[in-house]
Amino acid sequence: MQHADILIQNGLVVTVDSNDTILEDGAVAISGREIAAVGPTVEVTARFSADQVIDASGQVVMPGLINAHVHAPDSLFRSLVGDMPLEPWLERLWIAEKRFVRAETVELGARLAYAEMIAGGITTALDMFWFPERSAEVARQAGFRLVTGPIYFDMEEPDGIPPDERTERARAFLQEYRDDPLIVPCVSPHSAYTVSPQYLEQAAALAAEFGVLLHTHASETAAELASVRERYGAAPPEHFDRLGLLSERTILAHCVHVSDEEIALLAERRAVVAHCPVCNLKLGSGIAPLKKMREAGVRVALGTDGPVSSNDLDLWLAMRFVATLHKGVSHDPTFLDVRDVVRMVTCDAADALGLGDRIGSLEAGKRADLILIDLNSPHLAPLYDVYSHLVYAVGRGDVSTALIDGRPVMLNRQLTTLDQAAILASVRALAPQIQDFLSKNTH
Amino acid sequence: MQHADILIQNGLVVTVDSNDTILEDGAVAISGREIAAVGPTVEVTARFSADQVIDASGQVVMPGLINAHVHAPDSLFRSLVGDMPLEPWLERLWIAEKRFVRAETVELGARLAYAEMIAGGITTALDMFWFPERSAEVARQAGFRLVTGPIYFDMEEPDGIPPDERTERARAFLQEYRDDPLIVPCVSPHSAYTVSPQYLEQAAALAAEFGVLLHTHASETAAELASVRERYGAAPPEHFDRLGLLSERTILAHCVHVSDEEIALLAERRAVVAHCPVCNLKLGSGIAPLKKMREAGVRVALGTDGPVSSNDLDLWLAMRFVATLHKGVSHDPTFLDVRDVVRMVTCDAADALGLGDRIGSLEAGKRADLILIDLNSPHLAPLYDVYSHLVYAVGRGDVSTALIDGRPVMLNRQLTTLDQAAILASVRALAPQIQDFLSKNTH
Repeated sequence: MQHADILIQNGLVVTVDSNDTILEDGAVAISGREIAAVGPTVEVTARFSADQVIDASGQVVMPGLINAHVHAPDSLFRSLVGDMPLEPWLERLWIAEKRFVRAETVELGARLAYAEMIAGGITTALDMFWFPERSAEVARQAGFRLVTGPIYFDMEEPDGIPPDERTERARAFLQEYRDDPLIVPCVSPHSAYTVSPQYLEQAAALAAEFGVLLHTHASETAAELASVRERYGAAPPEHFDRLGLLSERTILAHCVHVSDEEIALLAERRAVVAHCPVCNLKLGSGIAPLKKMREAGVRVALGTDGPVSSNDLDLWLAMRFVATLHKGVSHDPTFLDVRDVVRMVTCDAADALGLGDRIGSLEAGKRADLILIDLNSPHLAPLYDVYSHLVYAVGRGDVSTALIDGRPVMLNRQLTTLDQAAILASVRALAPQIQDFLSKNTH
Repeated sequence: MQHADILIQNGLVVTVDSNDTILEDGAVAISGREIAAVGPTVEVTARFSADQVIDASGQVVMPGLINAHVHAPDSLFRSLVGDMPLEPWLERLWIAEKRFVRAETVELGARLAYAEMIAGGITTALDMFWFPERSAEVARQAGFRLVTGPIYFDMEEPDGIPPDERTERARAFLQEYRDDPLIVPCVSPHSAYTVSPQYLEQAAALAAEFGVLLHTHASETAAELASVRERYGAAPPEHFDRLGLLSERTILAHCVHVSDEEIALLAERRAVVAHCPVCNLKLGSGIAPLKKMREAGVRVALGTDGPVSSNDLDLWLAMRFVATLHKGVSHDPTFLDVRDVVRMVTCDAADALGLGDRIGSLEAGKRADLILIDLNSPHLAPLYDVYSHLVYAVGRGDVSTALIDGRPVMLNRQLTTLDQAAILASVRALAPQIQDFLSKNTH
C-alpha cells in the first residue's frame, strides 16, 4: 500500500488528457504537490491509503480552470464605470488607479480577485498589474498559481518607476521567482500604444533571456489600431513582429481587429491569443475573428479580462460566450465542439502559458490543480454528456472544492487560505472613498 | 399596528417602480398574496407586525424575474442533442419527444424546470408545451406563476389531439383557468411553418374572445423565413398580420430574421418580441436586431427558450448576453442601460404578458413575487451601483430566497414546495431510457 496525502474518490473524473479519458467512478491520489495516480476508484484505493479522503460522489473532478488574461487587483474598481467606449472608460479608470493604486490596495484587490477566482474554479491566472511583487506575495499566501511580472508603460505610473529603470527592476523580479513552485514570472509590456519601440525591444530581450512569457494587449479596438498604424505604419501584430516580440512565448490579449495576414503571422510565430469575448462585447470593441484564427492554426486561450470591464471573473461565462457567440456570428452551429471549449481553459491554456508539462490535465506527475463540481442541482439534471454540461450548464456556483499545487484552497464552498469576511470588510471600507473621489474628479 | 403575514426587512430594496426607487435599508410587508407596503425598514416595521420575519441584511430585494419564452418540460432532454442547426436538431428532438412525452413525463419535466427556475430567481414563465393542463397543475402545487395554454400544431402530436379538435379543447382550458390566481391561460399556435392558416385564424379568434395572450414562434431561422415565404408569399410577421394574429396581446419568440418593415409592423401592432439571445447564438440562427427594434419602439422581453437549446434556464445569463452582445455587434457600448436590461425581465416583461398591474415591480397592491440576492460573495464586492451588479455580476447562484404570490417557495437556497431530491432521482432513472432510445433511432 502506497501513501498519499489526499485521495479524491468516487467522482466523475474528466481528465482532459490527450485521449479525453473520462472515468465514471474515478479517483485521484495526490502526494505533495503532485498527482500520484488517476484511475478507477477501485484500483486507486487498492494502491493508496491517504491522510485525507475527499468523497466526490455526485461530483465532477476536473483540472482547475486557467484564466489567460486578467488585471486582478482592478477588482477594487468593479462596476465603478460602465457603458462607455474603451478610451474614455480607460481615462476614468486611470484617474481612480492613479489615486488609489498603492502597494497595500494592490494586495487587497489581489486577495479579493483570488477569492473570487478560486470560488469560481479558477486555479491559475495570467495577471497584469502594478506592484506585481505584491500580487505574487498574496498569491503565495493564498496558494494561488499566478503568472505575473513587471509592467512596461511609458506614461506616469502608480508605482513611480521611471521607464528607464523598468528593465533593471524587471530583471530582479524574474530572478527572484524563476524557480518558484507557484509563481511563474513573466514580462508585461502594456501595449503598442502605451510603450515605445525601445522599451518593447527591451521587454522582448528580457523575456527571451529568461525564457519567460511576454504578455501584452493587441488590437483591442478600432481606435487603437488606427493610432498604432498612424504612429508606426503597421498594425500591432506586425509592429510587434518587427521589434522581435512575437514568439511561441507571447500572449496577446484580445486581437479583435486583425486582418487575415495578421492572423497568418500569429499562426506562423505560434503566438497565443487570449480571447476575452465578454469584455470585447461590453466595451463595444467588437468580436474577435475566432473561427478564422482557429482555422489558421492560431493558438487560443480564454480570459475574463479585469473586473472593471467584464465585470466579474467568471470563466464559465467566458466559455458559454465563446461556445455560442461564434456559432451565431458565423451561422455555423457546428463550430467549436464542447471538448474544444473545455480545452481552451485547461490543457490548451496550460500550453499557452508554457505550463503544459505541469498543469491543464489530470495525469500522474502533473501538479494537483483540480476542482470538484457539484452535480446535485436541477440545472444539471439529467446528465447525457458531461462536456456539454461543462460548457452549457455548469456555472461558478457549482464549484464546491478546489486544490492548487496539492493544497486544498476551497473545501465545500469555504475558502481555506483567504479570509473572505475580512477581505469583504476591507473592500467595503475603501469603496466609498474611491467613489467619492471619482465623482469629484470626473464629469 | 397592522398585521402582515411576512415582513422582509433590512434589505437593499430595488423596487423597479416607475421612479427606479431604491431603498438602502428597506422593507416589504406582505399580506396574503399581496404586497401591503414597501418603504424604509424603520417606517414599515413601525406600521406592521408579522408572523414571519425574513432578515434581508446584506441582500438585495427585488421583483422575481419573468421568463418570456420557455418549453419547461423539455428539461428532460437537456443536452441530449447539440452543436447542430435548428432543423436537424428539431428533428432529433421530436423523435425523442414523440416517444417519451406523456402526461407523467410532462409533470416530471415541469417539476424539474420549475425547481431550476425558482432556484435561479425566476418566479413567472411563459411556457409552451404539450399537456399544458399537467404543467398547470404542477405549477399550482409548486406555487409557480405560469402562463401556458393549448398548442396548435398540424403534424402528428404527442398528445394525440387531432388538429380539428384543438379549438374545442383549448376553450375548455381557457375557461378552467380564467380566474386562477396563479395560472394565466393563453393560446399557443406553434409557428407559421407548423400551423396552417385556418388554425392560426382559429387560435387568434379564441385568444381575442378570451382576451388572453397569443404565444408563438416567428422568424427564428433563415430556413424558416424562406419556407414561410415560399408557402405564403410573406414573412412570418406579415403572414400573421394578414390572419389577424398581431396585437398587443401577441408574443413572438425570436424574430431574428426581420426586416425594417416588419419591425415597423411589430411596433405599430404593439406586439411583443421574446428575445432569446443564448439559444439564437447556440443554434447558429443569428442575432436579432434588438437595437433597431428598440429604436422603433417594439416591446421586448427576454426568454431562455427551452433547456434543449439553451441548455439551462438562466435569465441572469440572458441578461448578461443581451447587455453585452448588442453593444459588441453595434460597436456602441452606450446601447442598453443597465436599468433597461433589468426592466426587460421585470416590469417590461410583466407588461408584455398582460400582467403589468399584478407583477413586475415591488409596489403596494401588487402580488408578492420577489427574490432575495445574497451580496456576501467576492464577485459582488465592492458595490458601487446595484443595477450594474444585477446585470453584470449577479448570477443564479446568488439567489437565496424566492416568494411567489406571497408564498415562500425557496428559503435560504432550499426549495420549499418541490422535493428536489425526489425530482432528481426520477429524472436520473428516466434519462438512460431516453438516451438508449435515441441512440438506436437516429444515426
